[in-house]
Amino acid sequence: MSLMTRCIAEFFGTFWLVFGGCGSAVLAAAYTADAAKIGETTLFPLGIGLGHISGAHLNPAVSFGLFVAKRFRGGADLLGYIVAQVLGGIAAAGLLYLIASGKPGFTLSGSNPLATNGFGAHSPGGYSLLACLVIEVVLTFFFLMIILGATDVRAPQGIAPIGIGFALTLIHLISIPVTNTSVNPARSLGPALIVGGELLGQVWLFWVAPILGAVIAGVVYSALFSETTVAEERAREII
Amino acid sequence: MSLMTRCIAEFFGTFWLVFGGCGSAVLAAAYTADAAKIGETTLFPLGIGLGHISGAHLNPAVSFGLFVAKRFRGGADLLGYIVAQVLGGIAAAGLLYLIASGKPGFTLSGSNPLATNGFGAHSPGGYSLLACLVIEVVLTFFFLMIILGATDVRAPQGIAPIGIGFALTLIHLISIPVTNTSVNPARSLGPALIVGGELLGQVWLFWVAPILGAVIAGVVYSALFSETTVAEERAREII
Amino acid sequence: MSLMTRCIAEFFGTFWLVFGGCGSAVLAAAYTADAAKIGETTLFPLGIGLGHISGAHLNPAVSFGLFVAKRFRGGADLLGYIVAQVLGGIAAAGLLYLIASGKPGFTLSGSNPLATNGFGAHSPGGYSLLACLVIEVVLTFFFLMIILGATDVRAPQGIAPIGIGFALTLIHLISIPVTNTSVNPARSLGPALIVGGELLGQVWLFWVAPILGAVIAGVVYSALFSETTVAEERAREII
Amino acid sequence: MSLMTRCIAEFFGTFWLVFGGCGSAVLAAAYTADAAKIGETTLFPLGIGLGHISGAHLNPAVSFGLFVAKRFRGGADLLGYIVAQVLGGIAAAGLLYLIASGKPGFTLSGSNPLATNGFGAHSPGGYSLLACLVIEVVLTFFFLMIILGATDVRAPQGIAPIGIGFALTLIHLISIPVTNTSVNPARSLGPALIVGGELLGQVWLFWVAPILGAVIAGVVYSALFSETTVAEERAREII
Repeated sequence: MSLMTRCIAEFFGTFWLVFGGCGSAVLAAAYTADAAKIGETTLFPLGIGLGHISGAHLNPAVSFGLFVAKRFRGGADLLGYIVAQVLGGIAAAGLLYLIASGKPGFTLSGSNPLATNGFGAHSPGGYSLLACLVIEVVLTFFFLMIILGATDVRAPQGIAPIGIGFALTLIHLISIPVTNTSVNPARSLGPALIVGGELLGQVWLFWVAPILGAVIAGVVYSALFSETTVAEERAREII
Repeated sequence: MSLMTRCIAEFFGTFWLVFGGCGSAVLAAAYTADAAKIGETTLFPLGIGLGHISGAHLNPAVSFGLFVAKRFRGGADLLGYIVAQVLGGIAAAGLLYLIASGKPGFTLSGSNPLATNGFGAHSPGGYSLLACLVIEVVLTFFFLMIILGATDVRAPQGIAPIGIGFALTLIHLISIPVTNTSVNPARSLGPALIVGGELLGQVWLFWVAPILGAVIAGVVYSALFSETTVAEERAREII
Repeated sequence: MSLMTRCIAEFFGTFWLVFGGCGSAVLAAAYTADAAKIGETTLFPLGIGLGHISGAHLNPAVSFGLFVAKRFRGGADLLGYIVAQVLGGIAAAGLLYLIASGKPGFTLSGSNPLATNGFGAHSPGGYSLLACLVIEVVLTFFFLMIILGATDVRAPQGIAPIGIGFALTLIHLISIPVTNTSVNPARSLGPALIVGGELLGQVWLFWVAPILGAVIAGVVYSALFSETTVAEERAREII
Repeated sequence: MSLMTRCIAEFFGTFWLVFGGCGSAVLAAAYTADAAKIGETTLFPLGIGLGHISGAHLNPAVSFGLFVAKRFRGGADLLGYIVAQVLGGIAAAGLLYLIASGKPGFTLSGSNPLATNGFGAHSPGGYSLLACLVIEVVLTFFFLMIILGATDVRAPQGIAPIGIGFALTLIHLISIPVTNTSVNPARSLGPALIVGGELLGQVWLFWVAPILGAVIAGVVYSALFSETTVAEERAREII
């Protein structure tokens, strides 16, 4: 498909990911105990529904990681995907704000209004900048390792989106109290732009850390586990 | 199979969808924290169990959306499916009322008795008519986009029902506090008919909004992502 | 495989189903809010692990329903499976009692000790005998309809156990407050034998209602949706 | 692939299993009610992502059980896998301690600091040594039975990791209050080394019991259900 069609799919998909993930926290937190189901209920259906159109990256860190691991073209494709993801995240945060405002008494207050990400004073559990930086790098590193492994041609075909979705659930289970869970720069930017102030000032961490973790994963997976690496290793064994 | 056989399957399936979804809220709300698991536990088993018989629409909005996207015949098929779905929803609400009445002290009181949907004074979280209308349109739009994508011939075959079920779980996670979650006119009408009064008077929204969202999705998916669209696009690129 | 081998598999499987399902309620109720995950975490892994050995019925009602639908041989097979399932349920309840006794202060008291099923005064929510009878018949009817549909040769192959497991989760979501959820005579008998008294006196309901629901489902599915029915219908259409 | 490559995969996988499982308890317990989702969210994505590289044992008891059932080579392979798993568990516990320390006021106190396993005074629910020993043997026995069944060549291919992950969820649902859930010596050793003292003194149980349960399962499955057993049985029936 054309790059434009694939970018539209990324826009819709990231919209739903951010609207669903942040929406379940903003609108429903007091009603359900299942906020941590965000991963399996957003990413996995989108992976099945959009995978054949755009690959369902829905996350600039994923696009970067796949690019480093040579699973995704750079240049216009990488740029187009990231722009579409960012626009999807902003549109989702805007619509969520509109709907949330429909409840009498709604305000953008508290530690993490509109499900924004933060560290230090804006970490839900009060975690330090260092702890937040480390956990976002580590979580995105493993998220990409699982994505690269699950979509490897040698893995069982078809069920990759289920595994990737449940991996994102685990990431939420661990890191909601630390950073309110990013591992996705587009998910972080949308709500931060609406809320502004200190939370917008902290959004840099949620671009730097996830992309860093993803790039490391791309390098590590390629070096250790990629098909080419395995083929070279076998060739050496034969010689 | 004959239209009658397929309609009987839609009746049974919608019965179970409504009985299970509303039953877990009416009977069990105080015992489990998992009300939001409705989607994955109703729709996904039904999709596997009935998919090969009727396609497992179980929802007038889904039948409309598939019709607009040219995945389902109109005329007698569309009408028969919707009648069967509505009858299944009514029968389920009736049986649920019978069983719930077996608990001493049960009454049809409160904001949303028998798991009815509502807006304004009957929104669990007190959301306005506009917020409820917007969220039902948006949620049903994305529900259909995921259904159309997951059942596309280019998507991985066989696991579509799992993805669609988890998508419905997310929809519950977001919108239980807003509208008590409809995205399905047959699910809304059954309990409203038993309860009557103001809640029956609000049921129009849960026919208009889901069908509108589904029809928009049918148009958008066909225009952007359908196989024919892709084939035409490729032809233009070649020329 | 020999009938004896298959019966040993049914014994082990029913042991795990009852030990896991009742154990999560008896040992862990105060620690987790996920009691309702019983279905997806017991039945689905067992279906994948034992399906190729014994078919993983693990439930006398399922064996009866499959027999009526002509999916399972009667005679020695039906008898052997039921004996193995019952022995597995008793052994599991006994071991669970042994482990639970290892906590200081444990006693077999309260409305439903050792996760027994009950109605009236022994229904967790105080539901009447009639409500309990009706819900167990209805739930087992739909449980078998889903099993028969999901294991139909025309359904997507391989993922039936996932759908069946999630269907059992929904059944728990609905009926824990009503009967403490049976739909399985072997699951009901084991704990009741250890506890004795009034709860053993109520166990008849959890043999009669599930088997009745399962037999009705076997008849209905065969009459309406079976391959033979469909073939006959097509033949009539051709003529 | 070379043994070294496979051992690196086991290191990364066990790191994530222990970091995710213990991290969700240490960092997030007060924020989510879903601690028991550990199994499905750790093991299942890792099974899909790493299965084609190392088989994704991630657990010395699993490696032992597969070895006894003749599904895994002994010698250098068994030793290498266990060393890699133990190192992964230690590294994960160390990083988790680093991050948890980033929250003001964090201390290694209470019954089970850093999600350590324990019995008697260190059992979350105060269960006796005997009850803890029995439950770890029984749970690991059934865990391996399900693994051996689900990865049998006669089972449906591709979805084994999903079933195994959900089985580990059930194990957590049952045994968090008893032993804080081990069934995995590498998961137990890492946190115990960081915490030291009495909890390190209790770690022997979480090596002895899981490995014992796994070895029994390897023997039982091979004797009763293995392909060779079935082939011999058929041969006898023919003669």
